[in-house]
Amino acid sequence: MFSKETYTARRKTLANTIQNGLLIFPGNKEAGMNYKDNWYPFRQDSTFLYYFGINLPDLYVTIDAATGEEILFGDDLTPEDMVWVGAAEPLQAHAERCGVAKVQPMAKLQAYVQNAKAKGQTLHYLAPYRGNTTIEISELTGIPVAAVAEKRSLAFAKAVIAQRSIKSQEEITEIHKAVNITAAMHTHAIKATTHGVTEKQIAGELQAIAIAGGGNISFPIILTKNGQYLHNHATEAVVSNGDIVLCDCGAETSMGYAGDMTRTFPVAERFTTIQREIYSIVLDAHESASAALKPGYRFKDAHLLASSRIVEGLKALGLMKGDTQEAVNAGAHTLFFQCGLGHFMGLDVHDMENFGEQLVGYTDDLLKSTEFGLKSLRLGKALEEGNVLTVEPGIYFNPLLIDAWKAQGKYTDFVNYAEVEKFKSFGGMRVEEDFLITTNGKELLGDPLAKTADEIEALKNL
Amino acid sequence: MFSKETYTARRKTLANTIQNGLLIFPGNKEAGMNYKDNWYPFRQDSTFLYYFGINLPDLYVTIDAATGEEILFGDDLTPEDMVWVGAAEPLQAHAERCGVAKVQPMAKLQAYVQNAKAKGQTLHYLAPYRGNTTIEISELTGIPVAAVAEKRSLAFAKAVIAQRSIKSQEEITEIHKAVNITAAMHTHAIKATTHGVTEKQIAGELQAIAIAGGGNISFPIILTKNGQYLHNHATEAVVSNGDIVLCDCGAETSMGYAGDMTRTFPVAERFTTIQREIYSIVLDAHESASAALKPGYRFKDAHLLASSRIVEGLKALGLMKGDTQEAVNAGAHTLFFQCGLGHFMGLDVHDMENFGEQLVGYTDDLLKSTEFGLKSLRLGKALEEGNVLTVEPGIYFNPLLIDAWKAQGKYTDFVNYAEVEKFKSFGGMRVEEDFLITTNGKELLGDPLAKTADEIEALKNL
Repeated sequence: MFSKETYTARRKTLANTIQNGLLIFPGNKEAGMNYKDNWYPFRQDSTFLYYFGINLPDLYVTIDAATGEEILFGDDLTPEDMVWVGAAEPLQAHAERCGVAKVQPMAKLQAYVQNAKAKGQTLHYLAPYRGNTTIEISELTGIPVAAVAEKRSLAFAKAVIAQRSIKSQEEITEIHKAVNITAAMHTHAIKATTHGVTEKQIAGELQAIAIAGGGNISFPIILTKNGQYLHNHATEAVVSNGDIVLCDCGAETSMGYAGDMTRTFPVAERFTTIQREIYSIVLDAHESASAALKPGYRFKDAHLLASSRIVEGLKALGLMKGDTQEAVNAGAHTLFFQCGLGHFMGLDVHDMENFGEQLVGYTDDLLKSTEFGLKSLRLGKALEEGNVLTVEPGIYFNPLLIDAWKAQGKYTDFVNYAEVEKFKSFGGMRVEEDFLITTNGKELLGDPLAKTADEIEALKNL
Repeated sequence: MFSKETYTARRKTLANTIQNGLLIFPGNKEAGMNYKDNWYPFRQDSTFLYYFGINLPDLYVTIDAATGEEILFGDDLTPEDMVWVGAAEPLQAHAERCGVAKVQPMAKLQAYVQNAKAKGQTLHYLAPYRGNTTIEISELTGIPVAAVAEKRSLAFAKAVIAQRSIKSQEEITEIHKAVNITAAMHTHAIKATTHGVTEKQIAGELQAIAIAGGGNISFPIILTKNGQYLHNHATEAVVSNGDIVLCDCGAETSMGYAGDMTRTFPVAERFTTIQREIYSIVLDAHESASAALKPGYRFKDAHLLASSRIVEGLKALGLMKGDTQEAVNAGAHTLFFQCGLGHFMGLDVHDMENFGEQLVGYTDDLLKSTEFGLKSLRLGKALEEGNVLTVEPGIYFNPLLIDAWKAQGKYTDFVNYAEVEKFKSFGGMRVEEDFLITTNGKELLGDPLAKTADEIEALKNL
């Protein structure tokens, strides 16, 4: 974890912003998979990690924003627990390491919160994403379960977003580490994905690399010969020479910081000519959008820039036609690029997504679009120094969408359906890297990984 | 999945047992890890799998036990969903494959259940183990969230336990498969665990084998040089020559059936003399208890038999003393064997654990003990043909427990603390296999895996 001073300073900034009321931080519990005690891998809540750094289940912290009183609520292990899990440090030691002065047993939490409420203090909490947290918040605050999400504190959310959006140097160091483990996963995927293996076999090997790195995967691995479907997870499908495989995966470090990269590569030793051509369009869109990143630049403009590069490339191949800008304005590119260009990344791979994309990625003056394509763009607003984000354009030949839009006569001014038809079994391609916004521009996170078609082929043939 | 006839017959048996009321089966949802849409691997509820075999999120089924009316509630993918995940079969096809006649949109579930309630039908549901299921059951039934667990249907639970406790031939075939993938994980662990690797590195590789097998791990991998702590998961600790490593892991198949085995092995090419001696005691306890298994035999007696073999072995080494039976009756062996001998295994690795161990593993005439040691024995009752269970005795030198009990002067008639002191850094050893109870005895599940010290050393030195 980081130093006591880091966590203390973060909390001081937060309390100063909120000024009044009781801030309630529920740590995550173990999550039962198919029965209560068969647990998924423990994942601490990211906001809890950000302010306290304690990677243990069954904790709450409260901060009285007015007085600054901070209490860690939780229970030390019993002697019998030690039969099952060995010795453990007392919670007092964990509290001290993040600068929280008081520790109280969990049994005292309810009365403490009720007392704050009785004194007229506002109870601030963030929108929960697990059912048990919703139930607990309801019990603590007296708010009905069905109203818990709606009654979450907007002020609390905005204050956390403001802090977590700007990464410190020590966070960036940790993200570099996550991205480098992620890159190692991709290097392995490119080399190990050969004729006859299953998608799940390779996906399992990538997870092993993430686990060996000290943490785990930062999100479910997308590794598929059907990359045209955007969130298609690895299956038992066998890949063959001639297929292209889209691999979108990431590691998170033991501290919880994520990496998130995508590479698309042939199963065979080489891309085919047409695979190379489509790939070069995706790569051009990626490079163009990345090059434009700097403080003050709206990420929505990077998205539209990438979209127009995709239209240009597809026009050159005869799949699209007409004026590029008009095509993008009309949304015709969304037949091939249905999603957003990228998102913030940090302690969550889609950083702070649970606070709501409008709050995290947009502003009061820039509302998130509801149009197909743009509505999947999680980040639209002007960038700031210290932001960390992904850039991940793609071209996806979704046969279902091609059939549907062709039948509807959609975008016929911009789409040559006769040519596009030929790509219905092509698949999908994406290239994704992670960037830090710097004073004057951007910096690639992690050490470089094979990216051009030549580099990928060279890696396959090592 | 199994045949339509299999699922239909299972449900018919269930409805005939319950006779009246509405049986409510909540399928599992995706489970958010660090925000709502960053999912843990999807795991369907095991009882849902048992009666319907549909491995998809966001479904409910209701069965009217009196009329036999069965309805699958759920929503087909929208055209836009297909951008993200591709084409999907309609729910109607899934319903047909398991013999359920009707499919209704999820929006109709609430009114359907309320209508049954209004007609005076009992609403039967099982105790939930996820917070969101508790909330949903509360909304459906009108029972307050805090009362949902307590108001679960005991009749429903007992009827499900009676069915799921006896495995059919097709289930046994699937469990064989799970155990064989599990054995492959162990073979790899024994060979790959060498001086200088971390526990997590090997654990990740084992998970890769489980994933390549088509499913995933059936529970969090225990792989540790500190096997004296019973549920010690893999850490970033480095293992060294001289250490013994306890590996307790299992795969589940894509249908959800679990394997669960344990091996203990040296990091170096050979066990030391004393490691071999302790190992031979554990193995003797394992073989003795396994040999006794047959219908009508109480598993509690197998537990006590293994316990007395452990006492005998430790007496021979000078660590225990006195009369073996008296030592076991007094509980003195629990200084070394603090947990239970085994548990049922099936669609859950601790099969049906969420129904409560008293209901699953004991009877009205045989209550689960509250004594240290026996209270961790999940299964005590007489075995029946078709039961599938684990046998997993161990010897664990827990230094915290040794210090505490020595200081308390506990069991001084049976324990030679002066000798035991020398083992405080020994670690822990366990041997675990999975068995089917047959007409006259038992059958080992899965193909044989290296088990004796010689076999393990031979595998390490291949």
